[in-house]
Amino acid sequence: MNSTEPEPARGLTALSADEVNATLLSLTGWDNTAGKLHRKFKFADFSRAFGFMSAVAIQAESMRHHPEWFNVYNSVEVWLVTHDVAGISKRDFELARRMNDLYGNP
Amino acid sequence: MNSTEPEPARGLTALSADEVNATLLSLTGWDNTAGKLHRKFKFADFSRAFGFMSAVAIQAESMRHHPEWFNVYNSVEVWLVTHDVAGISKRDFELARRMNDLYGNP
Amino acid sequence: MNSTEPEPARGLTALSADEVNATLLSLTGWDNTAGKLHRKFKFADFSRAFGFMSAVAIQAESMRHHPEWFNVYNSVEVWLVTHDVAGISKRDFELARRMNDLYGNP
Amino acid sequence: MNSTEPEPARGLTALSADEVNATLLSLTGWDNTAGKLHRKFKFADFSRAFGFMSAVAIQAESMRHHPEWFNVYNSVEVWLVTHDVAGISKRDFELARRMNDLYGNP
Repeated sequence: MNSTEPEPARGLTALSADEVNATLLSLTGWDNTAGKLHRKFKFADFSRAFGFMSAVAIQAESMRHHPEWFNVYNSVEVWLVTHDVAGISKRDFELARRMNDLYGNP
Repeated sequence: MNSTEPEPARGLTALSADEVNATLLSLTGWDNTAGKLHRKFKFADFSRAFGFMSAVAIQAESMRHHPEWFNVYNSVEVWLVTHDVAGISKRDFELARRMNDLYGNP
Repeated sequence: MNSTEPEPARGLTALSADEVNATLLSLTGWDNTAGKLHRKFKFADFSRAFGFMSAVAIQAESMRHHPEWFNVYNSVEVWLVTHDVAGISKRDFELARRMNDLYGNP
Repeated sequence: MNSTEPEPARGLTALSADEVNATLLSLTGWDNTAGKLHRKFKFADFSRAFGFMSAVAIQAESMRHHPEWFNVYNSVEVWLVTHDVAGISKRDFELARRMNDLYGNP
C-alpha cells in the first residue's frame, strides 16, 4: 500500500522493534530492513516466480494490503510496511506468513 | 489454440491411439477424453489454482501452444489437442508434462 | 464458487427471471444461459486474454465470489451464478459489471 | 534478465547513447536512467496494475527477455537492459514497445 491507497488501518498499531524482532524468530527467511519486513524469494525460473506473485496478488488484495516488490527473472524481493501506522504491524506479519505458505515454507 | 491462432505445426503428426495410451502410462493424472489429453487439477484454494494457471500461461505462450481450460474456485480442468494435426501430438504431451512439473507431480 | 467454497450468502436472494432480464438490459454483452449470467469475451491475443483474467481473479477473490470460466487462446467465456441461493443474485451482476469495466465496456 | 538467466544474445549489440536517445523520441513515456530504459506506469488500481504485469510477463517470457520491475499498489516501474551486451539493445526497445501497446499508448 502507499499513501494514495484507500486502506483503513482498523485499529492497527506499529509494533516496537523488540516485538518485530521477537516475531521474526518464528518467520523463516524474513528480516527487518530499514523498518520494513523484507525477504528475497528465489525460484527455478521466471514462470514459477510469476505464478507465486499471482497467488500472492490475489491474497494481498483480499487483505487490502499490498506488498512493495521487485522482480527480475527468478527472483522476487519483498518489503512490507503499514504506512497508516508508519511502521510494521500485525498485518505485515500476516501477509509475510501467507507468502511463506505459498512458497512452501513452514 | 484454435483455428485463428497463428501456430505452425512444424512437422508434428497426430499420435495413434496406441501411442497415446502407451505414453499416458508414464504421465500422472492424465487420460484421453474424446481425443484430447485431459486432467483435472485440484488446489487448496483459488489463489493457488490461479497462481498455477499463471505459471502455465507463461510456459504455454513460450511453446506457442495453449490449453483449453476451465476454472472454478480451486479446480482447473484442462484439455490438450493439436488442431493442426487433428489429434494429440508430442507437443500436447510436452505441455502436459510441464503442467505436472508445475503441479509438483513426477 | 462451488459447493465446497466457504462463501456466505449474506442475505442474498435469487433474482426472479423478470428481474434478471430487466437488469440485463443495461449490461453490455451478457445473457442468461441456463440460469447463469453468461458472456464470451474476445481479445487480440492470449497475453491480453490472460491479463484480463488476472485482473478479474484479483477482484473476484476480494468479493469472495468466483467465476466459472473457460479460456482458450484469445477467448474467455464466463458463467456466473450464486450457488448458495440456487440462482442469479446481485453479486453476480456486480462481478459481471466489474468484468465489463476491466474489458472497457460501459 | 540477469546473469544467471540462460538467455543468448543472438548477435545483439549495445546501442550507442545517441542511438538510444534518437529511438526514445518515438517511444512514449520512456527515458534512459543510468543506462537502462525506464518507465513508470500508473493504473486505476492494483488489479489493473497486476493484470498488465501478467500480460507483459507472458510476452516477455516468449521473447526470452525479462524486465526488472517494481510494483506497489497501482504503480509499475520498469527498467530494461540487455546484460549480455552490457547496454541497451534493440530487444529492450521491442519489449518497451510491447509494454506501451499493452498499456494503450501509441
